[in-house]
Amino acid sequence: MKLRALKTPAALVDLAIVERNTKRMAERMVGLGCRLRPHVKTHKCAEIARLQVRGHFGGITVSTLAEARFFAAAGFRDITYAFPLPINRIEEAANLSRRLDALNVLLDHPTTLHELETHAQRTRVSFSVFLKVDCGYHRVGVEPDREESVSFATKLSQSPHLDFRGILTHAGHAYRCRTREEISRVAGQERETMVAFADRLRRAGVRIDEVSVGSTPTMSVTDNLTGVTEARPGNYAFYDAFQAGIGSCSLSDCAFSVLVTVVGHYPDQNKLVVDAGSLAFSLDPGPHHTDPECGYGVFVTMDGRPVPELSLFSMSQEHGQVRGKGRIDFERYPVGSQLRVVPNHSCLTAAMFDRYHVVRDDEVVDEWSPVRGW
Amino acid sequence: MKLRALKTPAALVDLAIVERNTKRMAERMVGLGCRLRPHVKTHKCAEIARLQVRGHFGGITVSTLAEARFFAAAGFRDITYAFPLPINRIEEAANLSRRLDALNVLLDHPTTLHELETHAQRTRVSFSVFLKVDCGYHRVGVEPDREESVSFATKLSQSPHLDFRGILTHAGHAYRCRTREEISRVAGQERETMVAFADRLRRAGVRIDEVSVGSTPTMSVTDNLTGVTEARPGNYAFYDAFQAGIGSCSLSDCAFSVLVTVVGHYPDQNKLVVDAGSLAFSLDPGPHHTDPECGYGVFVTMDGRPVPELSLFSMSQEHGQVRGKGRIDFERYPVGSQLRVVPNHSCLTAAMFDRYHVVRDDEVVDEWSPVRGW
Repeated sequence: MKLRALKTPAALVDLAIVERNTKRMAERMVGLGCRLRPHVKTHKCAEIARLQVRGHFGGITVSTLAEARFFAAAGFRDITYAFPLPINRIEEAANLSRRLDALNVLLDHPTTLHELETHAQRTRVSFSVFLKVDCGYHRVGVEPDREESVSFATKLSQSPHLDFRGILTHAGHAYRCRTREEISRVAGQERETMVAFADRLRRAGVRIDEVSVGSTPTMSVTDNLTGVTEARPGNYAFYDAFQAGIGSCSLSDCAFSVLVTVVGHYPDQNKLVVDAGSLAFSLDPGPHHTDPECGYGVFVTMDGRPVPELSLFSMSQEHGQVRGKGRIDFERYPVGSQLRVVPNHSCLTAAMFDRYHVVRDDEVVDEWSPVRGW
Repeated sequence: MKLRALKTPAALVDLAIVERNTKRMAERMVGLGCRLRPHVKTHKCAEIARLQVRGHFGGITVSTLAEARFFAAAGFRDITYAFPLPINRIEEAANLSRRLDALNVLLDHPTTLHELETHAQRTRVSFSVFLKVDCGYHRVGVEPDREESVSFATKLSQSPHLDFRGILTHAGHAYRCRTREEISRVAGQERETMVAFADRLRRAGVRIDEVSVGSTPTMSVTDNLTGVTEARPGNYAFYDAFQAGIGSCSLSDCAFSVLVTVVGHYPDQNKLVVDAGSLAFSLDPGPHHTDPECGYGVFVTMDGRPVPELSLFSMSQEHGQVRGKGRIDFERYPVGSQLRVVPNHSCLTAAMFDRYHVVRDDEVVDEWSPVRGW
């Protein structure tokens, strides 16, 4: 089937680019002496996860228990649930843990530790546990500079009912960068914070087997992972306009796009309207700090060349409003014609679709289905 | 089942409020002498559409062909597809049209008219067609003040292959209002623009049976629909924090909320984290023009009372970060405790869930499933 025959809006995955992105990251991590435990939350589909783990040990990272169940059913045996474990879902996690080689969970709060220990003691299901650390993003995690973080790690490591594996962080503040140089500095901080904290814990007698880091920007740019045992980037399988905007990749590395159809011309407003809005793209405002005019994505032609004169400046539920940066040549974009849009945030946009159309050049070669929900 | 036993994040529909909202709008429209053709894109589920059409003729409005098929299968016989018909979906619309009393489509461009006529001529499937009019929102539609809009309507009405029904608009600019008085002015403009354009067309010899208007803000506030034949509000079934912010409703009219669980405490940042982020809520920034500090929704207790001291100020894919407006009393929100959030935009948030938990007080009495996709 040809790309042009698809109903729109349609989610397109360019297979050659996914293969290149996943191979490159796998080789990068081998070169840096670090195991790759790719995050799969961007695409949530088994086929891409299988490409991501090639050349590594097969472990993956998920963001929900629905993903954990889905990937367990698809044959993945070592899964890190990289979200502070909600205490009302311990039972579910335990059920999953029994069926896997490892279900690694994270926590940063004494209540969660207490509930997990109580459950493990009662059921004799042991969890593999990471301490979540804040390396500067300030979303979740313990502060590595605090004495109480050392005490908490000590207590965690001494639990007879839990298998304490080590420390884990996510340098989400890399998304605030503007250049590769800035990302590189955040990557340095991520590594150094974690290695220093691991050393401090070891000096305090805490055994730390794993030092886990990872974000797509930092892992795409760093050239030093000394002291880090595993990396957990995920978005790099697709990349997106945000990553290209901050310098993690170039636009030609973006493997995910949305196929749209022009449904209206509004020359008085120098505007087109396309048949994809916030229910197709989600509403991530994108890298406004590098380009206040970035809109909700980047238009590309059917064969992937940028169309810089068009900007997806506004969306409602099903309408995408497209402004010309100069005067639009409406004859180039007739009503009924198609365009592709590389979204700002491929994780959120991909989640709006029940299936991906896998394309090679202009041929649809497969359909893949992501999991959704919690 | 009790509300508290649900896994989170969970989508909650308060049935008593939906019943009240739908009854009130149905009665409002009867009182104003106007047929109600409710939009169903907010909830996309048959059970709520059935409540919406009570006391009216049974016609509904949809935003996608997937919705049209779903509601056709659920027994709805008169459906308006309120989006500029994409020409590559005419065949699909025709197939659906054959099975219904009416599938009304809209257009505002000569290419769409040409393609629709050609299709109708070839297949002898006649479409019921509306001309989309711009009443000041400036998203799509023809400009009613232009001579060429009259010519286009004339041409459309004279097509031997199409059943021209009339004119249709959506006053989406009502969402930019700050008060009921401002909404009332937009409602006046919406009605007056359409009635004047209908008169102008009639004077030009064009038969106009239908004058269709509608947005939840304008239909919640207006007290005059003279000359209007049908209204198409939809969001009012749920309302949301945005509608409450601009004055369409009060917070206690909001029927849709997301149940979340506290997963972390960060006293240094005066912050909680909950287990729902942009994949649960979508990222609608809300009524920033009325409240720059509005965050991504409004916290309410399990029984619906506002919690004004908490603000959902930042989200990533699965994390919701909650700041205190004053100092958070963390003991009130222990790790593992639950809260509800009335989202900024119920249409986008509801679409993130595969099922709604229907609640009466603190009892889950049913589960309803929305359609998704295109």
